[in-house]
Amino acid sequence: MDLITVTGLAAAFCTTTSFVPQAIKTIRTKDTSGISLGMYALFSFGTLLWLIYGLCSYNIPIIIANAITLLFALIILTYKIKYR
Amino acid sequence: MDLITVTGLAAAFCTTTSFVPQAIKTIRTKDTSGISLGMYALFSFGTLLWLIYGLCSYNIPIIIANAITLLFALIILTYKIKYR
Repeated sequence: MDLITVTGLAAAFCTTTSFVPQAIKTIRTKDTSGISLGMYALFSFGTLLWLIYGLCSYNIPIIIANAITLLFALIILTYKIKYR
Repeated sequence: MDLITVTGLAAAFCTTTSFVPQAIKTIRTKDTSGISLGMYALFSFGTLLWLIYGLCSYNIPIIIANAITLLFALIILTYKIKYR
C-alpha cells in the first residue's frame, strides 16, 4: 500500500470516528444548545446520499465509513430534536 | 453526467456546506458547551489529511470540498478552545 492510500485511509478513519466523542458527550450531558440543528440535518442527509452513492457504485470503503458516520450523526440529531 | 455521479456531488455539497450553519451559530452565540473538543480536533486533523490526500492524488473535488470544510471546522475548533 502506498503512502497516498495510507493517508486516505487515515483521513477516513479520523473523520468517521470524530463523531463518536460528540455522540458520547451529547448522550451523557444532553447539552445540545450549542449544536446546530441545520448542521446535523444537512450532514445526516449528505451522509445518507454518500451511503447511496457507495452502494450504487459498489465502493466498500465509502459504504462502511458513511454507514458508521450516519449512525452517530443520527444519534446527535435525535438528541438535538429531543432536548433543544 | 449519470445519476450516481449526481448523487455523489449532491452528497459532497451537503456534507461540506453542513458546517456553515454550525460555524454561524457558534460565532453568533459563542455557546460551545455542548460541542465536543475531541470531535473538532479529530475532524479537523482528518480533513487536513483528506486535503493532503487530494493534493497528492490531484483530485480536484476532494481538494475543494476539504479545503472549505477545513476552514469551517477550524473556525468552530478555535471558538471551542477560546470559549469553553
